[in-house]
Amino acid sequence: METWQAIQSRRSVRAFKPEPVPEDLLKKLVLDAAIWAPSGGNAQTWRFVLVNDPQVLHKMKMVSPGLLGDPPAVIVVCQDLNEAKKKGSDLGEKVLTVMDTSMAAQNIMLAAHAEGLGTCAIASFHPGATQQILGLPEHIVPQLLISIGVPQKNPSAPKRNLEVLWVNEYR
Amino acid sequence: METWQAIQSRRSVRAFKPEPVPEDLLKKLVLDAAIWAPSGGNAQTWRFVLVNDPQVLHKMKMVSPGLLGDPPAVIVVCQDLNEAKKKGSDLGEKVLTVMDTSMAAQNIMLAAHAEGLGTCAIASFHPGATQQILGLPEHIVPQLLISIGVPQKNPSAPKRNLEVLWVNEYR
Repeated sequence: METWQAIQSRRSVRAFKPEPVPEDLLKKLVLDAAIWAPSGGNAQTWRFVLVNDPQVLHKMKMVSPGLLGDPPAVIVVCQDLNEAKKKGSDLGEKVLTVMDTSMAAQNIMLAAHAEGLGTCAIASFHPGATQQILGLPEHIVPQLLISIGVPQKNPSAPKRNLEVLWVNEYR
Repeated sequence: METWQAIQSRRSVRAFKPEPVPEDLLKKLVLDAAIWAPSGGNAQTWRFVLVNDPQVLHKMKMVSPGLLGDPPAVIVVCQDLNEAKKKGSDLGEKVLTVMDTSMAAQNIMLAAHAEGLGTCAIASFHPGATQQILGLPEHIVPQLLISIGVPQKNPSAPKRNLEVLWVNEYR
């Protein structure tokens, strides 16, 4: 799929068909898309947990109000905050990690869409409980969930606010 | 350009040819790419200032240690924090805005790359001074700069860390 088309036709999908997403494709979304995002100071402190075990997904749903529908897979985008602090001090730990996570997530969502999959980025979940469910150590902190699956339908686009642009000066 | 190719071949460019980027293309990067990113709760509180006036660019360079090379244009990605707080409370204002900004920025950088342009995302700049230079009110806060221009050359890819992936459980 052409880049501009992928950007404009991607939607946030919250209803999925039950069919699974091949694990190799989930891995490809991380290794051939997510990690090709830029990262602040090239820190690459992102960590990714692919979740496709129904029992683990069920537990995650219990602690994730934003995780809607029944996606067959979720990619949990985490950050190693120890390494982020070492590489980028406070700005790195608190701000750059969130930016890096989000750019990597956008790569995943665009690449998934190009493969005919639907995704939704989810910030409403309990990071501590998610750490417990996935066995993550304290310093590897989940920042964003991305649900992934075959969409039940392609949602229409929410209306875009076009009054967001100025040139050289805000007035 | 194909989506996966754009994702994998995009580089952070810090040396630009002097030739200008057509203003219509800069606008298109915002209106046909940036604002098609998802936003938390569909808030769309992002605001964009295109800077292509050499005098304004010169002033911005003085307060932006991360703004390297001499890009003919910069897109300043801002957030209306009043509106963000109204729509998404504290989480919206402090976290979701940074995520939304970054996903919109990634769209800009991929679309620009598909057009043969180079970009670099820059977090190292002085937000308050940038507000003054651009005449932004206090509640419209710059979160990220994106330098844009014709690359002097396509940089090689920094080595990717591939030890970043787990399935269902971190061990």
